Amino acid sequence: MKNPNIAAISTPPGKGGVAIIRISGGDPLSIAEKMFVPAGKTAVAAFSPNHMYPGEIDAGDFKDYGLCVYFRAPKSFTGEDVVEFHCHGGSSIARGVLRRAFELGAAGAQRGEFTKRAFLNGKLSLSSAEGLIDMINGESEAEVRAGYMLYCERLKKVADGLQASLTEILAGIDADVDFPEEDLEHTDLADVKTKIGAIRDKLIELRGTYSVGQKIRQGVNVVIAGRPNTGKSSLLNALLGADKAIVSSVAGTTRDAVEGALEIGGVRFNLYDTAGQRESENEIENIGIERARQLTEGADLVLFVLDAGEEFSEEDRSIAEKIENKNKIVVYNKSDLSDARGMRADIRVSAKTGENIQTLKQMMLEKSLQGYSADAEYLIEQRHYFALGKALEGVEAAYRACGNAPLDLLGIDLKAAWDALGEISGMTANEAIIDEIFAKFCVGK
Amino acid sequence: MKNPNIAAISTPPGKGGVAIIRISGGDPLSIAEKMFVPAGKTAVAAFSPNHMYPGEIDAGDFKDYGLCVYFRAPKSFTGEDVVEFHCHGGSSIARGVLRRAFELGAAGAQRGEFTKRAFLNGKLSLSSAEGLIDMINGESEAEVRAGYMLYCERLKKVADGLQASLTEILAGIDADVDFPEEDLEHTDLADVKTKIGAIRDKLIELRGTYSVGQKIRQGVNVVIAGRPNTGKSSLLNALLGADKAIVSSVAGTTRDAVEGALEIGGVRFNLYDTAGQRESENEIENIGIERARQLTEGADLVLFVLDAGEEFSEEDRSIAEKIENKNKIVVYNKSDLSDARGMRADIRVSAKTGENIQTLKQMMLEKSLQGYSADAEYLIEQRHYFALGKALEGVEAAYRACGNAPLDLLGIDLKAAWDALGEISGMTANEAIIDEIFAKFCVGK
Repeated sequence: MKNPNIAAISTPPGKGGVAIIRISGGDPLSIAEKMFVPAGKTAVAAFSPNHMYPGEIDAGDFKDYGLCVYFRAPKSFTGEDVVEFHCHGGSSIARGVLRRAFELGAAGAQRGEFTKRAFLNGKLSLSSAEGLIDMINGESEAEVRAGYMLYCERLKKVADGLQASLTEILAGIDADVDFPEEDLEHTDLADVKTKIGAIRDKLIELRGTYSVGQKIRQGVNVVIAGRPNTGKSSLLNALLGADKAIVSSVAGTTRDAVEGALEIGGVRFNLYDTAGQRESENEIENIGIERARQLTEGADLVLFVLDAGEEFSEEDRSIAEKIENKNKIVVYNKSDLSDARGMRADIRVSAKTGENIQTLKQMMLEKSLQGYSADAEYLIEQRHYFALGKALEGVEAAYRACGNAPLDLLGIDLKAAWDALGEISGMTANEAIIDEIFAKFCVGK
Repeated sequence: MKNPNIAAISTPPGKGGVAIIRISGGDPLSIAEKMFVPAGKTAVAAFSPNHMYPGEIDAGDFKDYGLCVYFRAPKSFTGEDVVEFHCHGGSSIARGVLRRAFELGAAGAQRGEFTKRAFLNGKLSLSSAEGLIDMINGESEAEVRAGYMLYCERLKKVADGLQASLTEILAGIDADVDFPEEDLEHTDLADVKTKIGAIRDKLIELRGTYSVGQKIRQGVNVVIAGRPNTGKSSLLNALLGADKAIVSSVAGTTRDAVEGALEIGGVRFNLYDTAGQRESENEIENIGIERARQLTEGADLVLFVLDAGEEFSEEDRSIAEKIENKNKIVVYNKSDLSDARGMRADIRVSAKTGENIQTLKQMMLEKSLQGYSADAEYLIEQRHYFALGKALEGVEAAYRACGNAPLDLLGIDLKAAWDALGEISGMTANEAIIDEIFAKFCVGK
């Protein structure tokens, strides 16, 4: 039986130049035939794949003039036959065209249903689908990049490679377990232990990238600390510079009190200014201090700003104590002025002239994401981190058991690790997990 | 010299499956060559027009996998060469791809600049462009329909036809004015007067459609009046029925207190409930009464709800007096109950069983938009209404002057009418008007 046709608006909601209504399934062309009148001579049924035909889109209650394109299975996003209408981007138009597709028999696509079909048709893996969501939801270049690597199956390939190594070891073990009476020595225990150790190391290395991956996802939280009049606000503005506009695009974020955000190396840095850090009898000011304390506690990095023209004061010392154990950069501002004493400067800048601001940015990147490289892969999905953790557990158990336990027990641990690795691509993922992942998508993707 | 390339995101802002970045100008393919790596063998420079090629979109700082399509001038929306990138619909992705196009030399498209270029290249008229905005901004089917008719040049054709008639009359007049010594009689005054009269009548008829056109644009405001317990709220719900969902799509509208909206024949009807209409000593209730009074005053239609099971009361009478001169429908609700007296019922309904609700809807449509037909044309743009008004002035002056004033004065009036008609298509519109119209567009259209 053919898959039922499903339809949705694939462009973001709202007003724009163009909106796309996508229909995928067993026979979307039969719907297109009833609601599209090509301007040229080609009949809808004779459409060449991937070619955009202009014509009249008939929504029943109104008409629009737009384009229609047909993607033939399996060379489409979903792997099924797909038809898209490109109409004018008003929400009444898009909704009306979609409603017409429903009238002609298409069902409404659920969240992520197009991508789910692509997954079920083997067009992409589960982790690749997750990469797609990460790209779409990505608020920074680094996030889009990390999503794209997932989408391109880079993680799946690594997991597949590890699975292949496990398969090889398991094959040897299975032979020995199944045919112990034969004299063949399939399992050289020392060799197996070395191989398992290598897999373990690779898993540890992969999982180690998650701490940076999390920062790529959430942004690096930077608190600017220092007593009043050291130029914290001007430093903030100097850092934001032309990037200040980014702030307004943070719509919908719940991080309150973020003063601004910028991208360094494509990674998002959220800057927080801790206005008054002085203890005070004023209750409201004390609330500010408490907030500043909490902010500082949660910060990935503290920029401790000192005035190069002034002596290191009691107040400076009190702040220095509070952030003693934090990941921090000591910034001497007003670098044109003479040296202060009391704390070694990590960098000397002038917020006023912009001197060393670029260097400070690079230092911020290095201090918070050590060795970050735009080309490297980072785990950004908690699900993958957990799956690798399960795999690591199995591999470590097998490593410990190697030589100390019967071969078949070793095999059970390794098989558990193999299964856990398969969860990443979805090969061994259960339906509940799959549904949960696609529910994170928007309708129309 | 070639037109500079301009670029913008053509889909609505926000998250979705697909976003489109459009580049139009003298040579958008040169930009595409630098940021698109086709998956197949065809080089970007050799792209067939209108064909969608899959491949890697290189935004410099990140990559995406999507589609690229080339429309060759003049067979494109703008009439210039156009390239579109269809990437995944995250805002970071779309913004990054656009930024890359900027880096490669494209300028940011201004609001409506693509459509403006289409207009300047003779792809559509000014009124057609206005139809496009109306379609995109349209909140109801009727609005989209009216916009589509404009977009399809239906109004322009009428205006062109009237201009042609004027041209013919003017040609005769000009000949007589220029060569009075010749014996030829170009101008039969009685015939001219008949012709001018016909043009005048057509203009009056056209302008007459604007009152319905305005309602198509703004929606018909309906106030449900009646004393408490006559079932106003249930009638409201019965009218909204499945359409109730429309309410939530009114985002961004400033009409406060609208209880719901529905479409009848594709036309939007905004329903207002006037909760307590009783005079009271309670100040807050009195504010409610004042609001109800204002609502009723501004309403296009009042549904006066009476309870069929109760006697016509003093309170009913007081409301009836207030809406005496309004366009109204007297609705007897609870039609299963026995007759009340005091006012002739226009219709008897049961909000509970749904009896006659559909008939009431048709009556509402007829009462507020007499003779409305989905296929008929209605003026919806004030600019067109004014232009036709100017044309009518000229034609009426000419009609009065016909036989009472020299032929050349007649010619001046008719030429003024001719110019006014040309403003509709943009033939005679000045640059300020043109700029103003395209500024109403969104960026990316």
